[in-house]
Amino acid sequence: MNCNAPIGVFDSGVGGLTVAREIMRQLPDERMVYFGDTARLPYGTKSKATVIRYSLQIVRFLKTKGVKAIVVACNTATAQALEEIQAEVDIPVLGVIGAAAKVASAVTKNGRIGVVGTTGTIESGMYTKALKSFDPNVQVYGKACPLLVSLVEEQWLHDWVTEEVVARYMKDLEYKSIDTLILGCTHYPLLRSVFRKVAGEDVVLVNPAYETARELGQLLEEHRLRCDSDVESAGTKYEFFVSDAAEKFCDFANSILPYDIEQVQQINIEGYD
Amino acid sequence: MNCNAPIGVFDSGVGGLTVAREIMRQLPDERMVYFGDTARLPYGTKSKATVIRYSLQIVRFLKTKGVKAIVVACNTATAQALEEIQAEVDIPVLGVIGAAAKVASAVTKNGRIGVVGTTGTIESGMYTKALKSFDPNVQVYGKACPLLVSLVEEQWLHDWVTEEVVARYMKDLEYKSIDTLILGCTHYPLLRSVFRKVAGEDVVLVNPAYETARELGQLLEEHRLRCDSDVESAGTKYEFFVSDAAEKFCDFANSILPYDIEQVQQINIEGYD
Repeated sequence: MNCNAPIGVFDSGVGGLTVAREIMRQLPDERMVYFGDTARLPYGTKSKATVIRYSLQIVRFLKTKGVKAIVVACNTATAQALEEIQAEVDIPVLGVIGAAAKVASAVTKNGRIGVVGTTGTIESGMYTKALKSFDPNVQVYGKACPLLVSLVEEQWLHDWVTEEVVARYMKDLEYKSIDTLILGCTHYPLLRSVFRKVAGEDVVLVNPAYETARELGQLLEEHRLRCDSDVESAGTKYEFFVSDAAEKFCDFANSILPYDIEQVQQINIEGYD
Repeated sequence: MNCNAPIGVFDSGVGGLTVAREIMRQLPDERMVYFGDTARLPYGTKSKATVIRYSLQIVRFLKTKGVKAIVVACNTATAQALEEIQAEVDIPVLGVIGAAAKVASAVTKNGRIGVVGTTGTIESGMYTKALKSFDPNVQVYGKACPLLVSLVEEQWLHDWVTEEVVARYMKDLEYKSIDTLILGCTHYPLLRSVFRKVAGEDVVLVNPAYETARELGQLLEEHRLRCDSDVESAGTKYEFFVSDAAEKFCDFANSILPYDIEQVQQINIEGYD
């Protein structure tokens, strides 16, 4: 495997860009291919079989790009399809749940962990399952926050409306005396400062995007796959692909990434069966 | 056709219940079978071919219930599949766009009409097309309001957060000096008083749920299909079916309908191919 090959990252839409952003920050020498399945989002309401089928199509597409590792930057695809993806390829594959759950279960002092996410993520109990696999004694309190994805996509990030909405959602978790909170939706890292303000300094915020990028760095080290920065990397450093509506994706990406992306290509993902 | 047969109403989810509610109010003697495709929502992001396929499956299901007329209480299904449904059955079929567009184009004095809806509805231009078919000279200004469906489903209906969000969305339309506003999403009739407050008394609000129920009444009269209220109707008056998660549907339905529904049945809609 060529250590200068790109990392493949995918999500059902734009949310996974927060993970891509963390990878750019923490592993600035690495190349990346990002795929957002904007035509078929959301994944949270789809059956396990469908999420597996979609994920494997994307993995086959990413393989055509010669990726050296894959990051599943989508909570639903991680919960439903991670094992199937790992069985499909012989490169390192990591999801967005494991690293965050590991850190949260290690840092909590009172064993009371809150998780915020979409209705699909919370109802599935995916974080509870992962947290209990690291420490069966933790108490996990989930809270679905259906308005937050739209608020992020409207880019009302530093806004008193968003602050009020987050405060209402957090009320239930405050009563549970949590000392650790997982931002369990890929959109929520963009609301980190709002959650910090509402939750106060005594609650540890765990950001799965950050933890996943960290775990990816370690995994690449272990597999001796870190990019050799002395070598001039061939081709474009970051490439972006979507299954629908490239313009809207581009707008959102440019609002959150540390550099402006010029080109997003739309591909027919159904063709990778 | 038996005039005491039920009316079939369907939507991709719960939104169409506002149309069902208007039918219950305006046509209190009529029986109804409602189907919400909760497993496969939202329709707004799906291809025309998929929306047609899903809609025809639902129509075939409704036919097994012996319905005497069908109301497509979903903006996307109306725009994408109304003609195909009409070709499939020999009973009256009406959508949720036509009646509202007809009324709006008739009541506007300055010819400047606003439409609020989901991103899918606004981007498709479905109301613009319908309005221009009644009057090619009207100016139509669409505004996508992505937060409003979640706000309604959270039931923050009489809430200052919702009022602030509506006020922000309405800003663009106010600059256009509209005198008529179509509430172009089946969830929005529940925000009617908020829109009234924000838009002021000088803007006519057009509620597609109300106009559709009115048109249905006329259509049943024309076809001599109005229920004969002297006859005791056989079976349950209102029946509700969904493709997924009956409980959540039930909660929402009971919060907006004028009576409590006891039972919602989950069916396998894929089987009606």
